[in-house]
Amino acid sequence: MRRLITILSLFIAFQISAQTDAENLKNIYTNSLTNGMSYQWLDHLSNQIGGRLSGSLNAEKAVEYTKEEFEKLGLDKVWLQPVMVPRWVRGAPEFSYIETSPGVTTNVNICALGGSIATPNGGVKTKVVEVKSLEDLAALGKEKIKGKIVFFNRPMQADLISTFEAYGGCVDQRYAGAMEAGKYGAVGVIVRSMNLRLDDYPHTGSMSYGDLPNSKRIPSAAISTNDAELLSSLLALDKNLNFFFSQHCKQLADVQSYNVIGEITGSEFPNEIIVVGGHLDSWDLGDGSHDDGAGVVQSMDVLRLLKESGIRPKRTIRAVLFMNEENGLRGGKKYAEVAKSKNEKHVFALESDAGGFTPRGFSFDCNDVVFAQIESWKPLFKPYLIHYFEKGGSGADIGPLKDNDIVLAGLRPDSQRYFDHHHAANDTFEHVNKRELELGAASMTALIYLMDKYGTATITNKEALKD
Amino acid sequence: MRRLITILSLFIAFQISAQTDAENLKNIYTNSLTNGMSYQWLDHLSNQIGGRLSGSLNAEKAVEYTKEEFEKLGLDKVWLQPVMVPRWVRGAPEFSYIETSPGVTTNVNICALGGSIATPNGGVKTKVVEVKSLEDLAALGKEKIKGKIVFFNRPMQADLISTFEAYGGCVDQRYAGAMEAGKYGAVGVIVRSMNLRLDDYPHTGSMSYGDLPNSKRIPSAAISTNDAELLSSLLALDKNLNFFFSQHCKQLADVQSYNVIGEITGSEFPNEIIVVGGHLDSWDLGDGSHDDGAGVVQSMDVLRLLKESGIRPKRTIRAVLFMNEENGLRGGKKYAEVAKSKNEKHVFALESDAGGFTPRGFSFDCNDVVFAQIESWKPLFKPYLIHYFEKGGSGADIGPLKDNDIVLAGLRPDSQRYFDHHHAANDTFEHVNKRELELGAASMTALIYLMDKYGTATITNKEALKD
Repeated sequence: MRRLITILSLFIAFQISAQTDAENLKNIYTNSLTNGMSYQWLDHLSNQIGGRLSGSLNAEKAVEYTKEEFEKLGLDKVWLQPVMVPRWVRGAPEFSYIETSPGVTTNVNICALGGSIATPNGGVKTKVVEVKSLEDLAALGKEKIKGKIVFFNRPMQADLISTFEAYGGCVDQRYAGAMEAGKYGAVGVIVRSMNLRLDDYPHTGSMSYGDLPNSKRIPSAAISTNDAELLSSLLALDKNLNFFFSQHCKQLADVQSYNVIGEITGSEFPNEIIVVGGHLDSWDLGDGSHDDGAGVVQSMDVLRLLKESGIRPKRTIRAVLFMNEENGLRGGKKYAEVAKSKNEKHVFALESDAGGFTPRGFSFDCNDVVFAQIESWKPLFKPYLIHYFEKGGSGADIGPLKDNDIVLAGLRPDSQRYFDHHHAANDTFEHVNKRELELGAASMTALIYLMDKYGTATITNKEALKD
Repeated sequence: MRRLITILSLFIAFQISAQTDAENLKNIYTNSLTNGMSYQWLDHLSNQIGGRLSGSLNAEKAVEYTKEEFEKLGLDKVWLQPVMVPRWVRGAPEFSYIETSPGVTTNVNICALGGSIATPNGGVKTKVVEVKSLEDLAALGKEKIKGKIVFFNRPMQADLISTFEAYGGCVDQRYAGAMEAGKYGAVGVIVRSMNLRLDDYPHTGSMSYGDLPNSKRIPSAAISTNDAELLSSLLALDKNLNFFFSQHCKQLADVQSYNVIGEITGSEFPNEIIVVGGHLDSWDLGDGSHDDGAGVVQSMDVLRLLKESGIRPKRTIRAVLFMNEENGLRGGKKYAEVAKSKNEKHVFALESDAGGFTPRGFSFDCNDVVFAQIESWKPLFKPYLIHYFEKGGSGADIGPLKDNDIVLAGLRPDSQRYFDHHHAANDTFEHVNKRELELGAASMTALIYLMDKYGTATITNKEALKD
């Protein structure tokens, strides 16, 4: 009988709790869709400030602006966390053409890759070797590459449903192309833009020379997908055509910058910290609305939505706007370093860095017990069409927090349009839909609410119930 | 022992079948994403032809074009099904302003609603009564309405997750506003556009006068959401401001048009017919890319994808491009009427008429046994992030086919952006993403493939297995 009563009271407690959770989620979504701030904040970040490359004046403006907005929210704490960041500048616009016979040229759209060196003054003009992969490059060897421009032209795989998977299968060309081609004596590298669509935008992004000595470092640029197709077609007609490009980018000395942090201090377990974040820096070609203005304003709105929905979190919730995800990850590393040095206990971190599109769910880096717990919340999300709960990666900025205990997660919006805009001049405000952005902010808030409410406690209870 | 063997063979048969199904779905999606025709067809429909209002030259061009494209596919049958359609024409551009004091005017963006009469020559200028609903209107009564322009200004409800639900909760103002206001002696009706976003586009759409005598019929127009807000704000300051609008639309005599039909005849059960369709007509303001060029080209691509994937359907699969969904539904009614007169057995119909956005799933109008059968296919769709299988409505054009036996279904794409473009000048090709369109076509093909393969047979088997 006592056992029955225990079971009954547990059942009733769960019912009441589930009802409250459903109501709280409803409040969160309604507030976001009717009084959300994320779109207005993004408008300012994108249209009043613009692209926010680390070390730029715009990046510093974004630090000031978001700190001020945090302060308006009446949070428990708002602060700047200093971090030194690299400063790479693009300089004068790039210029490039294909020369099919002397003096007969067709201009093409390129942009320097982030971290690349400039071309020599007056640019580089020489023959091109087209390859599909780093393996192709190795197979050709020094003899066929020396003195040439290497053109990496492996397209993103269109039949993959996740465009991030397609990106992952291609981005080695961009990241390591110049490093590898430099070893074989190439004089430049041109990489097909990481874009599934055929259009005229070149897409920048980070590249690395690894340990390559300065003498072997060569300039590296992305070419638009349309112009990659054009170059490839023309090469099929004439292997001996010339390709010209000039770019004027350079790496300056590191400069001081900041992660921007806002906090609601936990009412019961203030020492257990939950992080929600995105990155404040962006590339310089567009205004960084999807990458990652969206994640920044959504993370800010998580704190506001919790407050507005009358939810007083038990744990400390921090929105962290990381600096320098794009070309250094210095902000993410610094945050984790400081957390470690202060012996802070981080229990959960969620990043939004996959665009401001309709949210589909989350991926989780955690063990099976925790994942089962999280999956039990799926029915609460069903009214909001949030269906994707899978184990997987989280986000670059929160990665350095990883240890045995923390649960890491990433918001997973619909990915189909993301690489149409990623790191390109058309990553701009008008391509973000207000409702889609707000649904993302609400979904993040809902997950944070549940993680805070049940935390590891429920998991412990679950284990206990097994006995 | 015999029983065990039976169970084992059933199990093995299911495994093999499930594997084949997974492979066939993979082929369908890969083909659509790498060699799909839907985007190319839509480009032609949208950019070479344009808006396709029933009875217009463009609508006839679309009939010719899609018939020719069907013929290129090497189908078993392609034909035109004659149907008389209404012909409403917009005439000279509408013009409208708010007059806050004599001679002080602000132009606003309006468009005549489909089916509306024109204003008298020289337009209408008079005072405005703002209401939120038909109930508000009735409460005001004749005295307060007579001689005025009624301004219906109930916004779509932003906190509903399905924008179609928000539309359903608002569209009575557009459809019946003039009919009801006319009864009280109003001289015109202005309706807030069915749009969740604040912007400058007026959104047209059908309206009806019902049985109202000609003498009581009044002109009716939609106003952009920004201008609805403006008008409402100005009315709050001055109830006596004047509103002017002029429009020149008229209803001409019905004209001959056609449903366009392509068919793959069934190899085993040619008399069991499966329909997949969208509507070929559109409103006249944009090029009708989302509504419903997308559904048209996806339906066409279903037949191509089945052929390309080497699937020979057992049942007859017809792609039907219905004429006149927007302002009459004559095509849908005619198709059902002919099917009935020929005693054709239709077992399944699927419509795509909710935009070319990322598909989320389908809704089904069917009984519980069939729905359970369909739900058992969900795991096959999981790799494609198709998760939404719910009972609900299907599509307007296939509605007239409804009887006790047919299963009706509608493709359910992500709905967040749909009403940004619906029936407005910005329903144009550049707002359709190629991959999203292709994923929709593949999802439709996959469902048709499974319905054809298992049809009602599996359901019968299921029933049999219960004994």
